[in-house]
Amino acid sequence: MKIELAEKYGFCFGVKRAIKMAQNSYGASTIGELIHNSKEIDRLKEEYNVKTLKDIDELSDEKKVIIRTHGITKEKLKYLEEKKDLEIINATCPFVTKPQQIVENMSKENYEIIIFGDIEHPEVQGVMSYSLSPVYVVSKVEDLENIKIAKKIAVVSQTTKKIEEFEKIVSYLLERAKEIRVFNTICNATFENQEAARKLSKKADIMLIIGGKNSSNTKQLYLIAKQNCPSSYLIESEAELDKTWFEGKELCGISAGASTPDWIIEKVVASLKSYGL
Amino acid sequence: MKIELAEKYGFCFGVKRAIKMAQNSYGASTIGELIHNSKEIDRLKEEYNVKTLKDIDELSDEKKVIIRTHGITKEKLKYLEEKKDLEIINATCPFVTKPQQIVENMSKENYEIIIFGDIEHPEVQGVMSYSLSPVYVVSKVEDLENIKIAKKIAVVSQTTKKIEEFEKIVSYLLERAKEIRVFNTICNATFENQEAARKLSKKADIMLIIGGKNSSNTKQLYLIAKQNCPSSYLIESEAELDKTWFEGKELCGISAGASTPDWIIEKVVASLKSYGL
Repeated sequence: MKIELAEKYGFCFGVKRAIKMAQNSYGASTIGELIHNSKEIDRLKEEYNVKTLKDIDELSDEKKVIIRTHGITKEKLKYLEEKKDLEIINATCPFVTKPQQIVENMSKENYEIIIFGDIEHPEVQGVMSYSLSPVYVVSKVEDLENIKIAKKIAVVSQTTKKIEEFEKIVSYLLERAKEIRVFNTICNATFENQEAARKLSKKADIMLIIGGKNSSNTKQLYLIAKQNCPSSYLIESEAELDKTWFEGKELCGISAGASTPDWIIEKVVASLKSYGL
Repeated sequence: MKIELAEKYGFCFGVKRAIKMAQNSYGASTIGELIHNSKEIDRLKEEYNVKTLKDIDELSDEKKVIIRTHGITKEKLKYLEEKKDLEIINATCPFVTKPQQIVENMSKENYEIIIFGDIEHPEVQGVMSYSLSPVYVVSKVEDLENIKIAKKIAVVSQTTKKIEEFEKIVSYLLERAKEIRVFNTICNATFENQEAARKLSKKADIMLIIGGKNSSNTKQLYLIAKQNCPSSYLIESEAELDKTWFEGKELCGISAGASTPDWIIEKVVASLKSYGL
Protein backbone atom coordinates (compact mmCIF):
# COMPACT_ATOMS: atom_id res chain seq x y z
CA MET A 1 0.00 0.00 0.00
CA LYS A 2 1.25 3.45 -0.94
CA ILE A 3 1.05 6.20 1.70
CA GLU A 4 0.66 9.78 0.53
CA LEU A 5 0.51 12.95 2.62
CA ALA A 6 -1.70 15.78 1.40
CA GLU A 7 0.18 18.67 -0.23
CA LYS A 8 -0.78 20.85 2.77
CA TYR A 9 -1.74 19.61 6.22
CA GLY A 10 -1.25 20.12 9.93
CA PHE A 11 -0.01 23.05 11.95
CA CYS A 12 -0.90 26.49 10.75
CA PHE A 13 0.98 29.71 11.37
CA GLY A 14 -1.11 30.64 14.43
CA VAL A 15 -0.64 27.29 16.13
CA LYS A 16 3.12 27.20 15.49
CA ARG A 17 3.36 30.68 16.97
CA ALA A 18 1.29 29.78 20.04
CA ILE A 19 3.36 26.68 20.77
CA LYS A 20 6.57 28.66 20.48
CA MET A 21 5.16 31.25 22.88
CA ALA A 22 4.16 28.49 25.32
CA GLN A 23 7.59 26.88 25.13
CA ASN A 24 9.09 30.26 26.00
CA SER A 25 6.81 30.60 29.05
CA TYR A 26 7.91 27.84 31.41
CA GLY A 27 5.40 27.24 34.19
CA ALA A 28 2.63 29.40 32.68
CA SER A 29 -1.06 28.43 32.63
CA THR A 30 -3.26 28.57 29.57
CA ILE A 31 -6.89 29.71 29.81
CA GLY A 32 -8.58 26.75 28.16
CA GLU A 33 -6.68 24.24 26.02
CA LEU A 34 -3.96 26.06 24.07
CA ILE A 35 -4.86 24.19 20.91
CA HIS A 36 -7.38 21.45 20.15
CA ASN A 37 -4.94 18.60 20.59
CA SER A 38 -4.65 16.77 23.89
CA LYS A 39 -1.39 14.96 23.02
CA GLU A 40 0.42 18.21 22.32
CA ILE A 41 -1.00 19.71 25.51
CA ASP A 42 0.38 16.76 27.48
CA ARG A 43 3.80 17.29 25.90
CA LEU A 44 3.83 21.00 26.81
CA LYS A 45 2.93 20.04 30.40
CA GLU A 46 5.68 17.45 30.64
CA GLU A 47 8.44 19.37 28.93
CA TYR A 48 7.60 23.00 29.81
CA ASN A 49 5.33 22.70 32.86
CA VAL A 50 2.60 24.56 30.95
CA LYS A 51 -0.67 23.88 32.77
CA THR A 52 -4.19 24.12 31.41
CA LEU A 53 -6.97 25.89 33.35
CA LYS A 54 -10.57 25.35 32.30
CA ASP A 55 -11.40 29.03 32.58
CA ILE A 56 -10.41 32.22 34.40
CA ASP A 57 -12.28 31.20 37.57
CA GLU A 58 -9.63 28.53 38.17
CA LEU A 59 -6.92 31.21 38.47
CA SER A 60 -5.30 31.38 41.91
CA ASP A 61 -1.66 32.42 42.37
CA GLU A 62 -0.57 32.18 38.72
CA LYS A 63 2.16 34.56 37.62
CA LYS A 64 1.81 33.98 33.87
CA VAL A 65 -1.24 33.19 31.76
CA ILE A 66 -1.34 32.31 28.11
CA ILE A 67 -4.34 33.28 25.97
CA ARG A 68 -4.85 30.57 23.43
CA THR A 69 -5.05 30.80 19.61
CA HIS A 70 -8.88 31.09 19.68
CA GLY A 71 -8.70 34.27 21.71
CA ILE A 72 -10.83 35.17 24.70
CA THR A 73 -13.76 37.50 25.31
CA LYS A 74 -13.11 41.21 25.72
CA GLU A 75 -14.48 41.05 29.27
CA LYS A 76 -12.18 38.22 30.32
CA LEU A 77 -9.17 39.96 28.82
CA LYS A 78 -10.05 43.09 30.78
CA TYR A 79 -10.38 41.00 33.97
CA LEU A 80 -6.90 39.52 33.43
CA GLU A 81 -5.37 42.90 32.61
CA GLU A 82 -6.69 44.31 35.87
CA LYS A 83 -4.94 41.64 37.93
CA LYS A 84 -1.71 42.95 39.43
CA ASP A 85 1.49 40.94 38.96
CA LEU A 86 -0.04 38.77 36.27
CA GLU A 87 1.89 38.52 33.03
CA ILE A 88 -0.35 37.96 30.01
CA ILE A 89 1.09 36.09 27.02
CA ASN A 90 -1.43 36.72 24.27
CA ALA A 91 -1.18 33.86 21.77
CA THR A 92 -4.44 34.75 20.02
CA CYS A 93 -3.89 33.97 16.36
CA PRO A 94 -3.54 37.23 14.39
CA PHE A 95 -6.15 35.87 11.99
CA VAL A 96 -8.58 35.78 14.94
CA THR A 97 -7.60 39.22 16.23
CA LYS A 98 -8.66 40.55 12.81
CA PRO A 99 -12.39 39.65 13.02
CA GLN A 100 -12.39 40.85 16.64
CA GLN A 101 -11.25 44.29 15.45
CA ILE A 102 -13.60 44.27 12.46
CA VAL A 103 -16.62 43.48 14.63
CA GLU A 104 -15.70 46.26 17.06
CA ASN A 105 -15.19 48.82 14.29
CA MET A 106 -18.24 47.85 12.25
CA SER A 107 -20.55 47.93 15.28
CA LYS A 108 -19.22 51.43 16.01
CA GLU A 109 -20.21 52.40 12.45
CA ASN A 110 -23.73 51.06 13.09
CA TYR A 111 -23.53 48.01 10.88
CA GLU A 112 -25.53 45.05 12.08
CA ILE A 113 -23.06 42.24 12.78
CA ILE A 114 -23.50 38.73 11.46
CA ILE A 115 -20.91 36.09 12.29
CA PHE A 116 -20.81 32.89 10.26
CA GLY A 117 -19.69 30.32 12.80
CA ASP A 118 -20.65 28.04 15.67
CA ILE A 119 -21.94 29.98 18.62
CA GLU A 120 -20.40 27.48 21.07
CA HIS A 121 -16.92 27.87 19.59
CA PRO A 122 -14.53 29.87 21.81
CA GLU A 123 -13.23 31.82 18.81
CA VAL A 124 -16.78 32.97 17.97
CA GLN A 125 -17.51 33.84 21.60
CA GLY A 126 -14.37 35.95 21.64
CA VAL A 127 -15.17 37.68 18.34
CA MET A 128 -18.80 38.43 19.26
CA SER A 129 -17.77 39.97 22.59
CA TYR A 130 -16.14 42.82 20.66
CA SER A 131 -19.43 44.07 19.24
CA LEU A 132 -21.02 47.10 20.87
CA SER A 133 -24.47 46.07 19.58
CA PRO A 134 -26.33 42.73 19.39
CA VAL A 135 -24.74 40.12 17.14
CA TYR A 136 -26.26 37.29 15.14
CA VAL A 137 -24.30 34.06 14.84
CA VAL A 138 -25.38 31.75 12.03
CA SER A 139 -23.91 28.38 11.17
CA LYS A 140 -25.94 27.89 7.98
CA VAL A 141 -28.02 29.95 5.57
CA GLU A 142 -31.32 28.71 7.07
CA ASP A 143 -30.43 30.37 10.39
CA LEU A 144 -30.91 33.73 8.66
CA GLU A 145 -34.60 33.08 8.08
CA ASN A 146 -35.52 34.10 11.63
CA ILE A 147 -33.55 37.32 11.53
CA LYS A 148 -34.94 40.66 10.51
CA ILE A 149 -32.23 41.79 8.11
CA ALA A 150 -31.01 45.36 8.61
CA LYS A 151 -30.16 47.71 5.73
CA LYS A 152 -26.44 47.82 6.53
CA ILE A 153 -24.78 44.57 7.47
CA ALA A 154 -21.21 43.54 8.21
CA VAL A 155 -20.34 39.86 7.94
CA VAL A 156 -17.30 37.99 9.19
CA SER A 157 -16.58 34.29 9.36
CA GLN A 158 -15.07 32.01 11.94
CA THR A 159 -11.57 31.36 10.56
CA THR A 160 -12.13 27.62 10.12
CA LYS A 161 -15.40 27.68 8.17
CA LYS A 162 -15.99 26.57 4.60
CA ILE A 163 -16.23 29.23 1.91
CA GLU A 164 -19.16 27.59 0.07
CA GLU A 165 -21.64 28.11 2.92
CA PHE A 166 -20.23 31.61 3.51
CA GLU A 167 -21.08 32.43 -0.11
CA LYS A 168 -24.63 31.16 0.35
CA ILE A 169 -25.03 33.35 3.42
CA VAL A 170 -23.72 36.40 1.56
CA SER A 171 -26.04 35.72 -1.40
CA TYR A 172 -29.03 35.45 0.94
CA LEU A 173 -28.12 38.76 2.57
CA LEU A 174 -27.49 40.41 -0.79
CA GLU A 175 -31.11 39.83 -1.76
CA ARG A 176 -32.33 41.52 1.40
CA ALA A 177 -29.90 44.24 2.50
CA LYS A 178 -28.87 47.46 0.79
CA GLU A 179 -25.22 47.27 1.79
CA ILE A 180 -23.21 44.30 2.94
CA ARG A 181 -19.63 44.57 4.02
CA VAL A 182 -18.14 41.14 3.75
CA PHE A 183 -14.80 40.39 5.35
CA ASN A 184 -13.40 37.09 4.25
CA THR A 185 -11.78 36.09 7.55
CA ILE A 186 -11.59 32.44 6.60
CA CYS A 187 -7.98 31.45 7.10
CA ASN A 188 -5.99 30.50 4.00
CA ALA A 189 -4.26 27.68 5.88
CA THR A 190 -7.64 26.07 6.54
CA PHE A 191 -8.61 26.57 2.91
CA GLU A 192 -5.33 25.17 1.59
CA ASN A 193 -5.52 22.12 3.88
CA GLN A 194 -9.10 21.57 2.72
CA GLU A 195 -8.21 21.83 -0.97
CA ALA A 196 -5.29 19.44 -0.57
CA ALA A 197 -7.46 16.94 1.35
CA ARG A 198 -10.15 17.19 -1.35
CA LYS A 199 -7.61 16.52 -4.10
CA LEU A 200 -5.99 13.58 -2.32
CA SER A 201 -9.30 11.99 -1.26
CA LYS A 202 -10.37 11.83 -4.90
CA LYS A 203 -7.63 9.36 -5.75
CA ALA A 204 -7.05 7.58 -2.42
CA ASP A 205 -9.06 4.47 -1.54
CA ILE A 206 -8.60 5.08 2.18
CA MET A 207 -8.15 8.44 3.95
CA LEU A 208 -6.87 9.11 7.46
CA ILE A 209 -7.56 12.49 8.99
CA ILE A 210 -5.45 12.97 12.10
CA GLY A 211 -6.52 15.50 14.69
CA GLY A 212 -8.49 16.29 17.82
CA LYS A 213 -12.08 15.06 17.69
CA ASN A 214 -13.14 18.40 19.23
CA SER A 215 -11.30 20.38 16.54
CA SER A 216 -13.62 22.17 14.14
CA ASN A 217 -11.16 22.30 11.24
CA THR A 218 -10.20 18.61 11.68
CA LYS A 219 -13.88 17.66 11.45
CA GLN A 220 -14.22 19.74 8.26
CA LEU A 221 -11.29 17.88 6.70
CA TYR A 222 -12.91 14.61 7.64
CA LEU A 223 -16.23 15.63 6.02
CA ILE A 224 -14.48 16.69 2.82
CA ALA A 225 -12.50 13.44 2.65
CA LYS A 226 -15.61 11.36 3.33
CA GLN A 227 -17.44 13.01 0.39
CA ASN A 228 -14.88 11.62 -2.07
CA CYS A 229 -13.58 8.57 -0.26
CA PRO A 230 -16.11 6.51 1.72
CA SER A 231 -13.32 4.77 3.69
CA SER A 232 -12.29 7.88 5.62
CA TYR A 233 -11.35 7.77 9.31
CA LEU A 234 -10.83 10.52 11.88
CA ILE A 235 -8.20 9.46 14.42
CA GLU A 236 -6.37 11.25 17.22
CA SER A 237 -3.32 8.98 17.21
CA GLU A 238 -1.85 5.72 15.93
CA ALA A 239 -3.47 3.92 18.88
CA GLU A 240 -6.84 4.06 17.08
CA LEU A 241 -5.60 2.40 13.89
CA ASP A 242 -7.15 -0.93 12.87
CA LYS A 243 -5.13 -2.99 10.44
CA THR A 244 -8.28 -4.48 8.84
CA TRP A 245 -9.22 -1.02 7.45
CA PHE A 246 -6.28 -1.21 5.09
CA GLU A 247 -6.75 -4.69 3.67
CA GLY A 248 -6.91 -4.60 -0.12
CA LYS A 249 -6.28 -0.85 -0.23
CA GLU A 250 -3.74 0.57 -2.63
CA LEU A 251 -3.41 4.24 -1.71
CA CYS A 252 -3.75 5.62 1.83
CA GLY A 253 -4.07 9.39 1.87
CA ILE A 254 -3.23 11.33 5.04
CA SER A 255 -4.17 14.79 6.17
CA ALA A 256 -4.15 16.43 9.60
CA GLY A 257 -5.92 19.29 11.33
CA ALA A 258 -4.30 22.66 12.01
CA SER A 259 -3.59 21.67 15.63
CA THR A 260 -1.96 18.32 14.87
CA PRO A 261 1.80 18.26 15.51
CA ASP A 262 4.13 16.54 13.07
CA TRP A 263 5.34 14.03 15.67
CA ILE A 264 1.83 12.51 15.91
CA ILE A 265 1.58 12.24 12.11
CA GLU A 266 5.01 10.58 11.99
CA LYS A 267 3.90 7.96 14.53
CA VAL A 268 0.82 7.13 12.43
CA VAL A 269 2.93 6.75 9.29
CA ALA A 270 5.41 4.52 11.17
CA SER A 271 2.56 2.27 12.37
CA LEU A 272 1.16 1.97 8.84
CA LYS A 273 4.56 1.01 7.49
CA SER A 274 4.94 -1.62 10.23
CA TYR A 275 1.86 -3.40 8.82
CA GLY A 276 3.93 -4.34 5.77
CA LEU A 277 0.88 -4.08 3.46
CA MET B 1 -58.66 33.03 -24.35
CA LYS B 2 -58.09 34.55 -20.94
CA ILE B 3 -55.84 37.62 -20.67
CA GLU B 4 -53.93 38.19 -17.45
CA LEU B 5 -51.64 41.08 -16.55
CA ALA B 6 -48.65 40.35 -14.30
CA GLU B 7 -49.08 41.43 -10.69
CA LYS B 8 -46.41 44.10 -11.28
CA TYR B 9 -45.42 45.55 -14.64
CA GLY B 10 -44.62 48.72 -16.51
CA PHE B 11 -43.60 52.16 -15.36
CA CYS B 12 -41.36 52.40 -12.35
CA PHE B 13 -41.06 55.27 -9.91
CA GLY B 14 -38.11 56.85 -11.76
CA VAL B 15 -39.83 56.81 -15.13
CA LYS B 16 -43.10 58.22 -13.77
CA ARG B 17 -41.11 61.00 -12.12
CA ALA B 18 -39.12 61.79 -15.31
CA ILE B 19 -42.25 61.98 -17.45
CA LYS B 20 -43.91 64.28 -14.94
CA MET B 21 -40.79 66.50 -14.99
CA ALA B 22 -40.81 66.54 -18.81
CA GLN B 23 -44.51 67.41 -18.93
CA ASN B 24 -43.75 70.35 -16.64
CA SER B 25 -40.93 71.56 -18.95
CA TYR B 26 -42.70 72.60 -22.16
CA GLY B 27 -40.24 73.05 -25.01
CA ALA B 28 -37.25 71.53 -23.24
CA SER B 29 -34.75 69.17 -24.89
CA THR B 30 -33.65 65.87 -23.43
CA ILE B 31 -30.03 64.70 -23.74
CA GLY B 32 -30.58 61.27 -25.28
CA GLU B 33 -33.96 59.55 -25.23
CA LEU B 34 -35.75 60.35 -21.95
CA ILE B 35 -36.78 56.73 -21.54
CA HIS B 36 -36.35 53.64 -23.70
CA ASN B 37 -39.72 53.94 -25.38
CA SER B 38 -40.09 55.66 -28.73
CA LYS B 39 -43.92 55.87 -28.61
CA GLU B 40 -43.87 57.78 -25.33
CA ILE B 41 -41.12 60.05 -26.64
CA ASP B 42 -43.31 60.85 -29.68
CA ARG B 43 -46.22 61.68 -27.35
CA LEU B 44 -44.08 64.07 -25.28
CA LYS B 45 -42.94 65.77 -28.47
CA GLU B 46 -46.49 66.17 -29.78
CA GLU B 47 -48.18 67.22 -26.56
CA TYR B 48 -45.36 69.08 -24.71
CA ASN B 49 -42.91 69.99 -27.48
CA VAL B 50 -40.18 68.06 -25.66
CA LYS B 51 -37.42 67.41 -28.17
CA THR B 52 -34.74 64.72 -28.07
CA LEU B 53 -31.08 65.49 -28.77
CA LYS B 54 -28.68 62.64 -29.46
CA ASP B 55 -26.01 64.09 -27.20
CA ILE B 56 -24.71 67.36 -25.77
CA ASP B 57 -22.91 68.26 -29.03
CA GLU B 58 -26.33 68.86 -30.63
CA LEU B 59 -27.05 71.69 -28.18
CA SER B 60 -27.44 75.10 -29.77
CA ASP B 61 -29.75 77.76 -28.35
CA GLU B 62 -31.67 75.54 -25.93
CA LYS B 63 -32.95 77.19 -22.77
CA LYS B 64 -33.91 74.03 -20.89
CA VAL B 65 -32.34 70.58 -20.95
CA ILE B 66 -33.64 67.47 -19.28
CA ILE B 67 -31.23 64.81 -18.03
CA ARG B 68 -32.85 61.46 -18.53
CA THR B 69 -33.50 58.67 -15.99
CA HIS B 70 -30.20 56.91 -16.84
CA GLY B 71 -28.20 59.93 -15.77
CA ILE B 72 -25.24 61.41 -17.57
CA THR B 73 -21.47 61.40 -17.05
CA LYS B 74 -19.98 63.72 -14.47
CA GLU B 75 -18.05 65.56 -17.21
CA LYS B 76 -21.15 66.20 -19.31
CA LEU B 77 -23.09 67.43 -16.29
CA LYS B 78 -20.27 69.84 -15.50
CA TYR B 79 -20.27 71.06 -19.12
CA LEU B 80 -24.02 71.76 -18.93
CA GLU B 81 -23.73 73.47 -15.55
CA GLU B 82 -21.10 75.83 -16.96
CA LYS B 83 -23.41 77.02 -19.74
CA LYS B 84 -24.98 80.35 -18.88
CA ASP B 85 -28.77 80.76 -19.17
CA LEU B 86 -29.31 77.01 -19.44
CA GLU B 87 -31.84 75.53 -17.06
CA ILE B 88 -31.04 71.92 -16.13
CA ILE B 89 -33.92 69.64 -15.21
CA ASN B 90 -32.23 66.61 -13.69
CA ALA B 91 -34.54 63.63 -14.12
CA THR B 92 -31.84 61.08 -13.21
CA CYS B 93 -33.62 58.34 -11.33
CA PRO B 94 -32.70 58.57 -7.62
CA PHE B 95 -31.88 54.85 -7.77
CA VAL B 96 -29.21 55.72 -10.35
CA THR B 97 -27.89 58.73 -8.42
CA LYS B 98 -27.23 56.29 -5.56
CA PRO B 99 -24.58 54.12 -7.32
CA GLN B 100 -23.03 57.30 -8.76
CA GLN B 101 -22.50 58.59 -5.21
CA ILE B 102 -21.34 55.19 -3.93
CA VAL B 103 -18.74 54.87 -6.68
CA GLU B 104 -17.44 58.37 -5.97
CA ASN B 105 -17.23 57.78 -2.21
CA MET B 106 -15.75 54.29 -2.41
CA SER B 107 -13.06 55.34 -4.87
CA LYS B 108 -12.15 58.16 -2.44
CA GLU B 109 -11.75 55.50 0.26
CA ASN B 110 -9.39 53.54 -2.04
CA TYR B 111 -11.70 50.65 -2.80
CA GLU B 112 -11.28 49.15 -6.23
CA ILE B 113 -14.57 49.66 -8.06
CA ILE B 114 -16.37 46.87 -9.89
CA ILE B 115 -19.65 47.62 -11.66
CA PHE B 116 -21.89 44.75 -12.67
CA GLY B 117 -23.50 46.00 -15.86
CA ASP B 118 -23.16 46.56 -19.59
CA ILE B 119 -20.34 48.94 -20.41
CA GLU B 120 -22.31 50.37 -23.37
CA HIS B 121 -25.33 51.25 -21.24
CA PRO B 122 -25.66 54.99 -20.59
CA GLU B 123 -26.48 54.36 -16.92
CA VAL B 124 -23.20 52.46 -16.48
CA GLN B 125 -21.24 55.11 -18.34
CA GLY B 126 -22.70 57.72 -16.01
CA VAL B 127 -21.99 55.68 -12.89
CA MET B 128 -18.39 54.83 -13.87
CA SER B 129 -17.61 58.47 -14.60
CA TYR B 130 -17.94 59.21 -10.87
CA SER B 131 -14.97 57.06 -9.91
CA LEU B 132 -11.69 58.82 -9.16
CA SER B 133 -9.74 55.65 -9.99
CA PRO B 134 -9.97 53.04 -12.76
CA VAL B 135 -13.20 51.02 -12.81
CA TYR B 136 -13.93 47.49 -14.00
CA VAL B 137 -17.28 46.82 -15.64
CA VAL B 138 -18.29 43.15 -15.80
CA SER B 139 -21.46 41.75 -17.32
CA LYS B 140 -20.86 38.16 -16.18
CA VAL B 141 -18.71 36.29 -13.70
CA GLU B 142 -16.27 35.12 -16.42
CA ASP B 143 -15.30 38.74 -17.09
CA LEU B 144 -13.60 38.76 -13.67
CA GLU B 145 -11.05 36.15 -14.72
CA ASN B 146 -8.87 38.71 -16.49
CA ILE B 147 -8.86 41.14 -13.57
CA LYS B 148 -6.23 41.18 -10.84
CA ILE B 149 -8.50 41.35 -7.81
CA ALA B 150 -7.53 43.95 -5.19
CA LYS B 151 -7.75 43.36 -1.43
CA LYS B 152 -10.52 45.91 -0.89
CA ILE B 153 -13.32 45.97 -3.43
CA ALA B 154 -16.58 47.87 -3.72
CA VAL B 155 -19.26 46.45 -6.00
CA VAL B 156 -22.40 48.07 -7.37
CA SER B 157 -24.85 46.90 -9.98
CA GLN B 158 -26.61 48.51 -12.89
CA THR B 159 -30.15 48.99 -11.57
CA THR B 160 -31.75 46.69 -14.14
CA LYS B 161 -29.54 43.63 -13.73
CA LYS B 162 -30.54 40.21 -12.43
CA ILE B 163 -29.65 39.36 -8.84
CA GLU B 164 -28.55 35.76 -9.63
CA GLU B 165 -25.54 36.79 -11.71
CA PHE B 166 -24.73 39.53 -9.18
CA GLU B 167 -24.55 36.83 -6.49
CA LYS B 168 -22.18 34.76 -8.63
CA ILE B 169 -19.94 37.79 -9.08
CA VAL B 170 -19.91 38.49 -5.35
CA SER B 171 -19.12 34.84 -4.56
CA TYR B 172 -16.21 34.89 -7.01
CA LEU B 173 -14.83 38.03 -5.40
CA LEU B 174 -15.37 36.68 -1.90
CA GLU B 175 -12.95 33.85 -2.64
CA ARG B 176 -10.27 36.30 -3.75
CA ALA B 177 -10.58 39.56 -1.82
CA LYS B 178 -10.19 40.31 1.87
CA GLU B 179 -13.03 42.83 2.03
CA ILE B 180 -15.90 43.35 -0.35
CA ARG B 181 -18.41 46.11 0.09
CA VAL B 182 -21.46 45.13 -1.85
CA PHE B 183 -24.17 47.66 -2.55
CA ASN B 184 -27.30 46.09 -3.89
CA THR B 185 -28.30 48.85 -6.27
CA ILE B 186 -30.59 46.59 -8.27
CA CYS B 187 -33.93 48.36 -8.35
CA ASN B 188 -36.82 46.71 -6.53
CA ALA B 189 -39.21 47.67 -9.31
CA THR B 190 -37.14 45.69 -11.80
CA PHE B 191 -37.00 42.78 -9.39
CA GLU B 192 -40.73 42.87 -8.67
CA ASN B 193 -41.61 43.06 -12.36
CA GLN B 194 -39.28 40.11 -12.98
CA GLU B 195 -40.76 38.01 -10.20
CA ALA B 196 -44.30 38.72 -11.40
CA ALA B 197 -43.36 37.86 -15.01
CA ARG B 198 -41.72 34.62 -13.84
CA LYS B 199 -44.83 33.63 -11.87
CA LEU B 200 -47.24 34.42 -14.69
CA SER B 201 -45.11 32.77 -17.39
CA LYS B 202 -45.22 29.49 -15.47
CA LYS B 203 -48.96 29.19 -15.97
CA ALA B 204 -49.52 31.08 -19.22
CA ASP B 205 -49.31 29.28 -22.59
CA ILE B 206 -48.44 32.50 -24.39
CA MET B 207 -46.64 35.55 -22.98
CA LEU B 208 -46.44 39.07 -24.39
CA ILE B 209 -43.71 41.38 -23.10
CA ILE B 210 -44.42 44.94 -24.17
CA GLY B 211 -41.58 47.44 -24.29
CA GLY B 212 -38.75 49.02 -26.23
CA LYS B 213 -36.51 46.53 -28.02
CA ASN B 214 -33.52 48.63 -26.89
CA SER B 215 -34.67 48.54 -23.25
CA SER B 216 -32.44 46.40 -21.05
CA ASN B 217 -35.09 45.62 -18.44
CA THR B 218 -37.68 44.74 -21.12
CA LYS B 219 -35.25 42.24 -22.65
CA GLN B 220 -34.67 40.71 -19.20
CA LEU B 221 -38.43 40.23 -18.77
CA TYR B 222 -38.58 38.58 -22.16
CA LEU B 223 -35.73 36.16 -21.29
CA ILE B 224 -37.42 35.22 -18.01
CA ALA B 225 -40.77 34.64 -19.73
CA LYS B 226 -39.16 32.59 -22.49
CA GLN B 227 -37.55 30.26 -19.91
CA ASN B 228 -40.95 29.18 -18.65
CA CYS B 229 -43.17 29.76 -21.65
CA PRO B 230 -41.70 28.97 -25.10
CA SER B 231 -44.41 31.04 -26.85
CA SER B 232 -43.12 34.38 -25.55
CA TYR B 233 -43.03 37.51 -27.73
CA LEU B 234 -41.37 40.89 -27.26
CA ILE B 235 -43.44 43.63 -28.93
CA GLU B 236 -43.30 47.41 -28.94
CA SER B 237 -46.96 47.94 -29.74
CA GLU B 238 -50.19 46.28 -30.87
CA ALA B 239 -49.07 46.76 -34.51
CA GLU B 240 -46.68 43.81 -34.16
CA LEU B 241 -49.36 41.36 -32.98
CA ASP B 242 -50.09 38.31 -35.13
CA LYS B 243 -53.44 36.62 -34.55
CA THR B 244 -52.03 33.18 -35.44
CA TRP B 245 -49.82 33.27 -32.31
CA PHE B 246 -52.91 32.96 -30.16
CA GLU B 247 -54.71 30.13 -31.88
CA GLY B 248 -55.46 27.33 -29.44
CA LYS B 249 -54.03 29.25 -26.50
CA GLU B 250 -55.95 29.45 -23.24
CA LEU B 251 -54.09 31.95 -21.11
CA CYS B 252 -52.21 34.98 -22.47
CA GLY B 253 -49.96 36.58 -19.85
CA ILE B 254 -48.84 40.19 -20.27
CA SER B 255 -45.98 42.10 -18.74
CA ALA B 256 -44.28 45.34 -19.74
CA GLY B 257 -40.90 46.99 -19.24
CA ALA B 258 -40.29 49.86 -16.83
CA SER B 259 -40.49 52.40 -19.67
CA THR B 260 -43.76 51.17 -21.13
CA PRO B 261 -46.69 53.55 -20.58
CA ASP B 262 -50.10 52.17 -19.63
CA TRP B 263 -51.73 53.57 -22.79
CA ILE B 264 -49.62 51.23 -24.97
CA ILE B 265 -50.52 48.22 -22.81
CA GLU B 266 -54.21 49.15 -23.01
CA LYS B 267 -54.05 49.24 -26.82
CA VAL B 268 -52.49 45.76 -26.90
CA VAL B 269 -55.21 44.38 -24.61
CA ALA B 270 -57.92 46.01 -26.75
CA SER B 271 -56.48 44.38 -29.90
CA LEU B 272 -56.37 40.98 -28.24
CA LYS B 273 -59.99 41.30 -27.16
CA SER B 274 -60.99 42.27 -30.72
CA TYR B 275 -59.77 38.87 -31.92
CA GLY B 276 -62.70 37.30 -30.11
CA LEU B 277 -60.68 34.18 -29.27
